[in-house]
Amino acid sequence: MTTDYTPMWQELGLDLAGHEALLNVLGTAYTDIYLSQKNRPEGMGYFDFVMSEVHGLRIKELMDEKAAGRKIIGSYCVFVPEEIVLAANATLVGLCSGADFAMEKVEQLLPRNTCALIKSSFGFKIGKVCPYLESADMIVGENTCDGKKKAYETLGTLVDNLYVMDLPQTKTDQTRDLLKAEYMKFKTAVEELTGITVTAESLKSAIDVVNAKRAAIHRLSALRKADPAPISGLDALLANQVFFYDNPARFTESVNKICDELETRIQEKTGAFPAGAPRILVSGCPQAVPNWKLHMIVETAGAVIVGEESCVGERGTRNLTADTGTTVDEMMDAIVDRYFQVDCAIFTPNPQRLDHIQEMVTAYNAQGVIHYGLQFCQPYLMESIPVEKALEEKNIPCLRVETDYGMEDAGQLKTRVEAFIEQLR
Amino acid sequence: MTTDYTPMWQELGLDLAGHEALLNVLGTAYTDIYLSQKNRPEGMGYFDFVMSEVHGLRIKELMDEKAAGRKIIGSYCVFVPEEIVLAANATLVGLCSGADFAMEKVEQLLPRNTCALIKSSFGFKIGKVCPYLESADMIVGENTCDGKKKAYETLGTLVDNLYVMDLPQTKTDQTRDLLKAEYMKFKTAVEELTGITVTAESLKSAIDVVNAKRAAIHRLSALRKADPAPISGLDALLANQVFFYDNPARFTESVNKICDELETRIQEKTGAFPAGAPRILVSGCPQAVPNWKLHMIVETAGAVIVGEESCVGERGTRNLTADTGTTVDEMMDAIVDRYFQVDCAIFTPNPQRLDHIQEMVTAYNAQGVIHYGLQFCQPYLMESIPVEKALEEKNIPCLRVETDYGMEDAGQLKTRVEAFIEQLR
Ligand code: SF4
Ligand code: SF4
Ligand code: SF4
Ligand code: SF4
Repeated sequence: MTTDYTPMWQELGLDLAGHEALLNVLGTAYTDIYLSQKNRPEGMGYFDFVMSEVHGLRIKELMDEKAAGRKIIGSYCVFVPEEIVLAANATLVGLCSGADFAMEKVEQLLPRNTCALIKSSFGFKIGKVCPYLESADMIVGENTCDGKKKAYETLGTLVDNLYVMDLPQTKTDQTRDLLKAEYMKFKTAVEELTGITVTAESLKSAIDVVNAKRAAIHRLSALRKADPAPISGLDALLANQVFFYDNPARFTESVNKICDELETRIQEKTGAFPAGAPRILVSGCPQAVPNWKLHMIVETAGAVIVGEESCVGERGTRNLTADTGTTVDEMMDAIVDRYFQVDCAIFTPNPQRLDHIQEMVTAYNAQGVIHYGLQFCQPYLMESIPVEKALEEKNIPCLRVETDYGMEDAGQLKTRVEAFIEQLR
Repeated sequence: MTTDYTPMWQELGLDLAGHEALLNVLGTAYTDIYLSQKNRPEGMGYFDFVMSEVHGLRIKELMDEKAAGRKIIGSYCVFVPEEIVLAANATLVGLCSGADFAMEKVEQLLPRNTCALIKSSFGFKIGKVCPYLESADMIVGENTCDGKKKAYETLGTLVDNLYVMDLPQTKTDQTRDLLKAEYMKFKTAVEELTGITVTAESLKSAIDVVNAKRAAIHRLSALRKADPAPISGLDALLANQVFFYDNPARFTESVNKICDELETRIQEKTGAFPAGAPRILVSGCPQAVPNWKLHMIVETAGAVIVGEESCVGERGTRNLTADTGTTVDEMMDAIVDRYFQVDCAIFTPNPQRLDHIQEMVTAYNAQGVIHYGLQFCQPYLMESIPVEKALEEKNIPCLRVETDYGMEDAGQLKTRVEAFIEQLR
């Protein structure tokens, strides 16, 4: 990094030594995993820059926004509507929780048998190493899985600005009403935070901004259908991860620029992997920065990941919000309808997800599916069994992996993944 | 057993060999754990009889009810209102899931990291060893914890009569409406099953029957306040367990008879344990028949358990349903209000439970609390940490245990429990 951001980190109350350690781990991992890739699109230079400035320039931007009176809102789930946040002139950032930190202290507050995502979010808070978390004027929790739902009760004692949103567990007219009521309450809470009332105009424009970001990702995803795949799964995953905290307009532009390049690569048959490389769909729990473990293992074994059925991926981005409403209430309904389609495993039943996985297999010409389950994530681990069954009934090979952020099981995972890939050749 | 129930079990489709094996385990455990106790109230003879006939006479009664056109409904949770079931002239039985069975097969359908209760309920189904389950005309699931919620999706493929009830995760006016709507739907489903419409009269009488059963248990609980404790925790736990599948009127009568005897014992200062024995409250996950593990370990170590803050215990039974309503709708509201108070850890936040634990400590003169958590039960394991914290702030010692139905950890558990008891002396 060229600029010295230490004063900014200090001002945010970060633990400088711990933060330095985290940045070093992150930097090394990025170099080893990302920069060592061959045949990358040039446009990924943008993401290399983003990652090198992830706690620097981007935080500086947020601090500048704050200085100008704009509020920052942090979220742990794709059910928190960015449209509402933007319409109230605030900025939404995903609180990525993809690395272990301060685990001994975390395990005094949470059971050991808690998923790595939740533990990580606590570790970042307890260790004071996440500038996004520390800069947030409001942190939004949501009643999704038992783990998060109950953990927010404790998180509320660690931060003073936690807002918890209730969510339904089924999809009926009555539970849609519950979601609508919660989104209306959330709109009010954000308006109170910012002092800015959401108008039809601001909401319309927010819907357009978020849809444009999603459309860019749709374009990127569609290009992954080509053989040879013009971009690695690792690089596409990174775009999906940066989706959660980059400036929306700049993100959209950068992804579209990469797509232009990928179109050329496809015409020229330039691949990130050779033509005919085994193609794999990853489905399951979200992979937050810097959780690149499974993608790295799969792609260093010579297969290419062509899609992520995940909240950091197509589950999170596939649906646009209808932009046909003219009043705030019509647009709020459109937002509710859009998010109510998210097929997270916390819903019961959740047949849409099974259908979507199979659609993705076909659309991206995947030869097999790896179901990615974080250890102790009951919703996804439970659902992985019917997922595997449904796929095998259609003769689509499926490998269920259950893992965490540690590297202890990397060797064993590699062996299983390699055997799975052999089966696809 | 004196009668040969084999033809009945055969008719129910039980796996006779597996069932025989289960009964043997159950019988041996009962003899070792229950019949070996000293200074038992004579009235416990009733429960000894119930247990010896648990798959015999009681099932015969249910089969006779069925032959007379009455329907049997099975449930896994105290949120299924017995009042509604009785008012439609059906019988509710708890589908106790307190023992491991057919675990290898279970783990093909459920993740290994699933709580013992859920695994057990699957094992009993897959192994075809539970006559209650097999005799049920309707099995009711409910969206409580992630584990059960998602497991019912698979259970629905194993049984053809599963009805799933949605439940809220928070307590607000809107979620109370959701519970009311679900209970109204459930009433309709039960009415359709039985062909009998719930009337104000039948509902009033059902409320009275269930309240009487609860009142008998309240009376029993109150008598446990005495020192020396007139009844062991094991015996009181058994009464709380049998609550779920005995004939309600007979159960009420039998518990009241035991209470008469306990009153005399208290006057005579006859205890199940010596006066001054350390007194412990158990709080946490439900302990279904034949899960007597923790109580056995605690009481063979010389302490007496004086209360269960559990769904098989005071969390499940403490509130009566108001009997002041005159119309079906008024009574349905009273039922909703009653169940909405159940302070299961699936709710967020759940401060009532913390209060109730402390109230019980005071009421029963407990010197310490053992928090009983089933491994992989996220709601209760998460909540156990703030529970411990709240208790320790009031100088009430708390031991958090996390266990399953296996006996592998019994030695280690015994050591920890003994050390905890030492601390209370
Ligand atoms: S997996 Fe479910 S709970 Fe997690 S971010 Fe996605 S929608 Fe939210
Ligand atoms: S990975 Fe699973 S357990 Fe962890 S936060 Fe997401 S849904 Fe919850
Ligand atoms: S602990 Fe909760 S889910 Fe379990 S039986 Fe009790 S109320 Fe139902
Ligand atoms: S013990 Fe916990 S995980 Fe198991 S069924 Fe009850 S609430 Fe669910």
